[in-house]
Formats: sequence, structure tokens, C-alpha cells
Amino acid sequence: MMRRTESETPRQPSQTAILRYLRVHGPAARIDIGTATGLSPATVTSLTADLMAQGLVRESEGGNGNTNGNTRGRPKVLLDLVPNAACVIGVKITINLIEIALGNFKGEIERSIEHSINTRDLGSEELTRTLIALIDRFVERNQDFCKHPPAGISIAVQGVTDSNSGEIIWSPALRHRHIPLVRSLTERYGGAVQMSNDANCIATAISQNTNLHDGGDFAVIMLGYGIGMGLVLNGNVYNGDFGTAAEFGHTKFQPDGPLCNCGRRGCLEAYIGDYAILRDARGLIDLPEANNLHPSEDQMMDLVARARNGDTGLAELFRHAGKVLGYGIANLIALLGPKQIFITGSGARAFDMMEPELRRGLAEAQVPELSRGPTITHLAWDKDLALQGAIGQSLLRHDENMFQAAGTAHN
Amino acid sequence: MMRRTESETPRQPSQTAILRYLRVHGPAARIDIGTATGLSPATVTSLTADLMAQGLVRESEGGNGNTNGNTRGRPKVLLDLVPNAACVIGVKITINLIEIALGNFKGEIERSIEHSINTRDLGSEELTRTLIALIDRFVERNQDFCKHPPAGISIAVQGVTDSNSGEIIWSPALRHRHIPLVRSLTERYGGAVQMSNDANCIATAISQNTNLHDGGDFAVIMLGYGIGMGLVLNGNVYNGDFGTAAEFGHTKFQPDGPLCNCGRRGCLEAYIGDYAILRDARGLIDLPEANNLHPSEDQMMDLVARARNGDTGLAELFRHAGKVLGYGIANLIALLGPKQIFITGSGARAFDMMEPELRRGLAEAQVPELSRGPTITHLAWDKDLALQGAIGQSLLRHDENMFQAAGTAHN
Repeated sequence: MMRRTESETPRQPSQTAILRYLRVHGPAARIDIGTATGLSPATVTSLTADLMAQGLVRESEGGNGNTNGNTRGRPKVLLDLVPNAACVIGVKITINLIEIALGNFKGEIERSIEHSINTRDLGSEELTRTLIALIDRFVERNQDFCKHPPAGISIAVQGVTDSNSGEIIWSPALRHRHIPLVRSLTERYGGAVQMSNDANCIATAISQNTNLHDGGDFAVIMLGYGIGMGLVLNGNVYNGDFGTAAEFGHTKFQPDGPLCNCGRRGCLEAYIGDYAILRDARGLIDLPEANNLHPSEDQMMDLVARARNGDTGLAELFRHAGKVLGYGIANLIALLGPKQIFITGSGARAFDMMEPELRRGLAEAQVPELSRGPTITHLAWDKDLALQGAIGQSLLRHDENMFQAAGTAHN
Repeated sequence: MMRRTESETPRQPSQTAILRYLRVHGPAARIDIGTATGLSPATVTSLTADLMAQGLVRESEGGNGNTNGNTRGRPKVLLDLVPNAACVIGVKITINLIEIALGNFKGEIERSIEHSINTRDLGSEELTRTLIALIDRFVERNQDFCKHPPAGISIAVQGVTDSNSGEIIWSPALRHRHIPLVRSLTERYGGAVQMSNDANCIATAISQNTNLHDGGDFAVIMLGYGIGMGLVLNGNVYNGDFGTAAEFGHTKFQPDGPLCNCGRRGCLEAYIGDYAILRDARGLIDLPEANNLHPSEDQMMDLVARARNGDTGLAELFRHAGKVLGYGIANLIALLGPKQIFITGSGARAFDMMEPELRRGLAEAQVPELSRGPTITHLAWDKDLALQGAIGQSLLRHDENMFQAAGTAHN
């Protein structure tokens, strides 16, 4: 792999930084771009002129005075990304559902479609064929917006993934393991295909939303069927050297604890995951027969309703899940000390019942000297966040490829 | 804080990279520097000419042909750091021992001295006064090598430190908590003072030793009085947003487990730390009265000898400590998946008794799909490694300050 250094291709990282800033913050004046990126006015003027010549950025007249509240004088000229400068695809694979969305260069979702498909019946090759058919049809139907092939494809998969090699290691949505999805799709679409687990995609979406996060390191914990995590360190999603980092759900609460879906015992997930809650609930009350391994949202909402309506045994399950989560977060804080921790996912449906014990568990487990630690925020579950993040990842990669190609051509 | 970007000051990060490369790899030809840093031959020639003009780098004739084994032709000209281009100070504070070392610009320890001092009797101000007196006397006695004030001072402290604010939060070497050491020393020595815990310093030393590590992310676990960790992610020691990351010893093995020195229960340290082993040993056998809270090396070596000589109860303590460590490492792998894990520290004196259970515990706790994870290496305990790392940290900071100052002057 060739290593590039900034001193030889100095314009490219700065151009990428400008695009990234405009995508996250929206239209901005040159002076504000300069302040945020640390570039001098002259450099900003020169680089944005390039970006405008390439059709990536355009001028638009903003409100008077913009951020400083001064309403007199000439209107400030704002720079903005050109929405149709690129079209990228985001795909999300969850149990029995494949969603596809089309994003513009600003990172906005323009169109999306859902397909109910029995994902667990698909073998490795069938999955690839199905995805290619769905993506091709989707792009064809949206030819008015999207050129073929799209500038980037990013796939969010529930489960354990190797983001480096592009392999699905294990997913509750699929019966088969070790599916080299990126390799198969790259044969069809070229190098612009990437894959990550859904928690990483959600972390990307949060990192691009300045309303949510304040610029420090953060973790997003996904409650649901399993317990996932996305980790953003120094501004980037952290995947680790093996591409499989942030498997928070398989850190341990208790050695020899209850059996986890991973085959080991005592993982956080074996207390907090939907399947674990349902398993314990069946030991407490009679429940209608249904899919134990992959509980539906209706099944889980029924348990939550019973707990809220006075079933103290069920309520205790959610409280205990909260305590276990608090202990897990204490370990996370001891090891990494992130500035913010977000908790979201469909499993956060019962967060109000979990939270008091979560806070108590955290206080019990955490070294007092480290307790000035992170803020812990419940983020209402937005199922589009993963798709949004997949689109964001595609665009980050697209920006890099664009300038790397340009750099190579010039050298 | 001003943000710098590479496009405006492109020479500085590249110069820092060249110094860092020479410090880690020793004398090297321009062509090898270029290959390693990704800089073009012309850029290397220009930047190294600058560094030579500044008296930081010099030419020396190396062996014939150097790395390629070709012994014919002209001898290759190698570049090397000028040892006396800077002098920095490393200080190490452990229980009742303060060590001071003087490092040259190449990162080699030139002189060092040990002071037996009852550190636990020192208050915050006394500690500062003592350190200033010791450092000043040391520098004065080594005036032949070191100008006053030294170009950098880096302090390694056993315990929990906030590397961002420069505060000792808690150390077994000190009775008082929350000591703003860096602030106090900065009043005397200016901005070139930094502090970190000993594990972070050891991580720095390892990151600068290509014989030990292969360039990926790694963690170093320090066994001893307590259990520390240094974490190197993307080439830099990771301190987290609160400056207190990598408190591996206070992640949990078991809720409601034995009492830890931190005041909580079930931390890894409460099973593996010297004080924990000694506490349990006193429950098994009669031992001479001695310092329970701060066991001496002799006390610990006595326990190890008894375990090796057939005391099955004591042997089981070390085996169980190994199991707990294995579970802790499984959590670390799940969360971060580093490429290498090193285990060292004075507590590794019993590593051979711990290792089989460590491997078993790790296998028991780890998700099978993530088991292709890191290599785990026992690193023989070298008590100079922390001082070596403190010197290394001082030089990294010195390089940055030097070019930042130069950049500011030019702008």
C-alpha cells in the first residue's frame, strides 16, 4: 500500500476537510470554513475555487449576516455542496428486511425502498445475487437522479462484521457465517463497496450530526436483538486491527453467567438482548408460542406493557438488564473514558424502566476518581439512522477516492 | 487553541516524521527515510538539509550498502540524530523511590540517579519542592551534558493520572490525592513539563522499539502493586477525553467480588494485584507480619517460592489470578481488538504459574468468531522501561514544540 503524506499532496486533505465541514454544517461562508478548518482565507478561496470548478460546491446567497446576527450590509455569500454531484447507495440488512436508500452528495436521503425477504433462507451466493438485483433495479428506477454504477455502496449489517476484509462474520439476519459480501459485490460494482455493522453506521451518522455530539470521542450502544456498539475515536469510527472492534455486547458481566448466543456465558447480551429478556420471561409467565430466538417487536412490546402494568417479575427483568448495562458501561469508561455515551436501538423501548438501575449499577462499579466521566444520553430510536450512516460512510470514501484519483493523475 | 493544518505548514509534520523515524530506527540512508515516510527523494533531501542546518541531524558514513547486503560500490551516507542537540529529563515516582534520568536527542539514557525517599510522607507542596530540588541538582551536576533548563521534563507516576490536566489523581506512592503536579512544575520550568502514569510511559517505550512491536495497535498490561495499562492506538498513546483512559485494572471480573483498593468490588486488580495475592495468602498460611498494603518485592518473592515449592493453596492463588486476567483480556479484545498485548511489570514474576489458566480463561470467555485476535506476549520486566518511555515522551513533545515555534516565527 502506498503511503501518502500531506507535504506532497497538501491540497487533498484540506479539500476533503472542506467537503466534510459543509456536509455536516450545511451552507457556510468562506470565513467560517476557514475558522473551522484552520485554513487561511487565501487557501480557502483557492481550494473552494477548485471545488467549484469541479462542480462539487456552489455559491448561494444566504441570509443577511448569517451567524453574527448583523442584518445590515451586503448579504453574505454562502458556499454549499451541489446535491447531484454524486449519488451513493446505502443498504441495510436486518432480520427479514432489506432496505435500500439513495443519498445525494450532501448526504441527504433522496429515495428509499423496503423489501420483506426471508433473509435467513438466503445462502451466501443467493444473498449476493439478491442484493445485486435489488440495487440494480433501484438504481434503474431512479435514473433521473442516479447514474449507473453509483459512486459508492455502503452496507449496514446487523451482527458481527469484519469491516477491513468486508466479511459478515455472523449476523442474526443470516443462517450462514463468514460471507465475503464486499468481495462478491466488488466484482459487480468495483472498488466503491464497503460494509460495516449497523452500530458503526449509526456512529457515523451521529459523528456527522453536530446537534448530537460535541466533537469528543463517543460510543453508541445499540440495544435490540443483540447488543452492539459503534466507537468514534479521534473523529473516526474505530474498527481495530482485525476490523471487529467494539463488540461491547460480548464483554462479560459475570463469569459462568447465562448462555449467550455467541456460545459463551455471562456476556452483557445474555442479560440485556431481546432474546435474553424473552427467555427469562418464559420462566416467569405463560406466553403464547412464538419465535424465541428472534422475538418480534410485538412480542417485546407485549412484555414491556405487562411490566408497566404491574407484573413485578417482568419489571425486575428490565431493571436487572439496566444494572448489567451499568456495569458494562463502567468497564467501558475505565478502559476508554469516552466523552459521550449514547444508548439507542429498538431495545431502548424499555429504557425508562432500565435507567434507574443502570445509574445505580454504574455508581456501584465505577472507580470514584473516574466518575466525572462521560454524559450518558438516551437517543430515541430512529431506524433510519443506520441507513443515514451508511450513506455518510459512502460519501467519506467517495471524497477520498475522488482526490486520490486526482492526485495520482497529477503526479 | 489554534488548529494547524498540513497544507499551510507542510514541512513541519514531515520533519517531525523524519526525526521520529531516525530515533526509532537509528542511522538511515535518505532513500530508506523516503521509503518509510512516503516522502519523495527531493523532499527528503530538502527537509534533511534543513534539519542538518539546525544542528539536529548529521551525516555519518555507514557500513557498505547498508540494508541491501550489497558490499560493493561507494559506502552509503547515513543520516543520524545529533545526540547533544537536546537534553531531556525523565522522572519516575514509585513507592519510596524517585528516579531521575537524563536523555539525549537520540532518546538514549546518558545518566541516571535513584533517591530513596519516603514518598508517602510527602504532601503536595513538599513533593513539588523535593522534585525541583532533585532535578535542579541533577541538571547542575550534569552541566557538561545538559543545559539548564532542560528541553523537556516528563514524569512517570505509578497510579491513576490525568495526562491532560497533569494531575496525579491517585498513586500508591503518595498519601494525598489530586496533586496538580504539572502546574506546579510548569511555574518553575515552563511549558515543557508533562506527566503520565508509568504504564503509558512503558507503552511509549514499546512503540519506539521496532524489535517489540509490529506497527499495529497494542496494549501493555502492567502487573504489580496494582494492574495498569498503556494503550497505543493509531501510533499514539491513548489517554481519552478525560486523560484517564486504560484503567484496565478497574474493569470487573465479578460483581460483588473482593474489595479493591479503589473502594469498589470485583475489579481485576482485587484478584491479581500484589496486595490482593498477599491478602488471600494470609488467609491460607501464617506469614510474618509486614506491610500488607504495600507488599515488598521480598514478600512477594517469598510467596512465589512457596507456591513453586509445593504449597498448592498458594499456587492456586496465582492460577486463579491468571484466569481472571484471561477474562479481562477477553473483554479488552471484544472492545478494542488490538493486534498485540504485552504483559509485564514486577508482578509478572509469577507469569509462568498464571499463563495456563490465563489462556484457558481467555478461551472460555472469548467469542469464538473473534478468536483469531491478538498475540499475547510476556515481556520480561525491565524497570528502566518507564524512564525510557518518559524520555521518549519528552522528545516527542520537544520535536513538536520546536517546529511549532519555528512555524509561528515564520508566519
